[in-house]
Amino acid sequence: MRVTTLAIVGVGLLGGSIALAARRRQLAARVVGVDHPSACAQALRLELIDEAVELGGAAATADLLVFCTPVDCLAAQILAAAPWCRAGCLLTDVGSTKAEIVRSVEDRLPPGVTFVGSHPLAGSEKNGSEHARAALFHRRQVIVTPTPRTDAVSLERVTTFWQALGATVRMMDPEAHDRALALTSHLPHLAASALAGVLPPELFSLTATGFRDTTRLAASNPALWSAILHANAAAVLEALARYSEQLHRFRAALEAKDRAALETLLGQGKQNKDALSDS
Amino acid sequence: MRVTTLAIVGVGLLGGSIALAARRRQLAARVVGVDHPSACAQALRLELIDEAVELGGAAATADLLVFCTPVDCLAAQILAAAPWCRAGCLLTDVGSTKAEIVRSVEDRLPPGVTFVGSHPLAGSEKNGSEHARAALFHRRQVIVTPTPRTDAVSLERVTTFWQALGATVRMMDPEAHDRALALTSHLPHLAASALAGVLPPELFSLTATGFRDTTRLAASNPALWSAILHANAAAVLEALARYSEQLHRFRAALEAKDRAALETLLGQGKQNKDALSDS
Repeated sequence: MRVTTLAIVGVGLLGGSIALAARRRQLAARVVGVDHPSACAQALRLELIDEAVELGGAAATADLLVFCTPVDCLAAQILAAAPWCRAGCLLTDVGSTKAEIVRSVEDRLPPGVTFVGSHPLAGSEKNGSEHARAALFHRRQVIVTPTPRTDAVSLERVTTFWQALGATVRMMDPEAHDRALALTSHLPHLAASALAGVLPPELFSLTATGFRDTTRLAASNPALWSAILHANAAAVLEALARYSEQLHRFRAALEAKDRAALETLLGQGKQNKDALSDS
Repeated sequence: MRVTTLAIVGVGLLGGSIALAARRRQLAARVVGVDHPSACAQALRLELIDEAVELGGAAATADLLVFCTPVDCLAAQILAAAPWCRAGCLLTDVGSTKAEIVRSVEDRLPPGVTFVGSHPLAGSEKNGSEHARAALFHRRQVIVTPTPRTDAVSLERVTTFWQALGATVRMMDPEAHDRALALTSHLPHLAASALAGVLPPELFSLTATGFRDTTRLAASNPALWSAILHANAAAVLEALARYSEQLHRFRAALEAKDRAALETLLGQGKQNKDALSDS
């Protein structure tokens, strides 16, 4: 897939990496960016984009718009851009939650303008286009979330675009995506943040690599992640309930001084972890 | 500090790394290892030790014995070795818990034989002397846990030994060590294991680096870690209670759909994490 004008709305880590990868791989004749002036200036300086434009201008000229803004802004921005789009224009996003966004957008687009939700399983606890990397999507999965109403040609175009960036594409229903990611991504963020949050400052100097790795995700942007947890609250609550039950089993085993039960619980974690590492 | 004969009891990742580092840095004229025959054979093949011996023989000939066996075996092995030791012999260990071991050993040593507890904040989720590295202790902390009864010369010798392996030594009371490590090390292991343990196999393929880093510690040996959690149950229960309270605050914020509260909680985690990374 080659596009004439690719518009990146939100030129941070993900948007900047898409822009860079698209330029390096010559997937777009022109890449424009939409963001705050300072973010645009940085993206131009880093040569991630050819030009900084307003959202309306981007919508009016682009064949493909990729929305890379926080999940609580996505639906509104997509709907703000849509009336300016030309027929044949394709919109997608990189939001970590999908059901609410797809539901909000799908029925409200002008004729000939289509939206397909995407979620690349790639990123970092770091933010900002200074961390953008062309290889960010290489050999990573991108979940694409069509619905029964999704146009087949648009689905094919979005799939081809992500594959051209080096990713493997997997299709999922938006609700199934959100339930799964609550466990595989949103819960780990919450668990890591809670763990970092309860460490008293006087013990900071007694941490080693174990604490540091387990809490890596706690460095993520609180505004971005509160929006994600909020958008997926029901599924995150279910995931958190599962986690709390397992922690309760550990508590019961510790209270009973039941070493065999502790070993069984740790064995469950190891079995899954080893299977994950092999997969 | 240079020893004539260094004995390593338990030649796994930690014991093997101490042996290797001591040989490389010429801290001991001779390094002997005590372990099961297959572990000894591997340690000899990897040239970590000069000779494999029985515990009694090691005790009778060594100036310094370092016990690197699981925490539930340490006290019994130290007490089994002690009667064979010569006057002036110094014993230490690398156990992740200290209070129970120090309490069990301290009063029951023959005259002239001394014990000082140690805990290097170094290691890996991997086990076995095939992962031994001479640099494992380089620029890492070793917590040494003297009590009012600890002999000053022995404390100085143990400190010098760890420093000679490249570590920084920090003194702590054994009980204070166990309370601190419950939060900085034992709780992260438990949290990582519980997180890995609740992931349904059908979602394994939807994990990315976030899940994998957060659960790295879940790959640790369940037998070793059930012994550590069991030995430090009271302090781990306190740490787990703190963690559960923080998770409960996340749950309440999710149930109330209170995005500001979520952002505040995530902000606490980030503040601590950023402070840790800077330290």
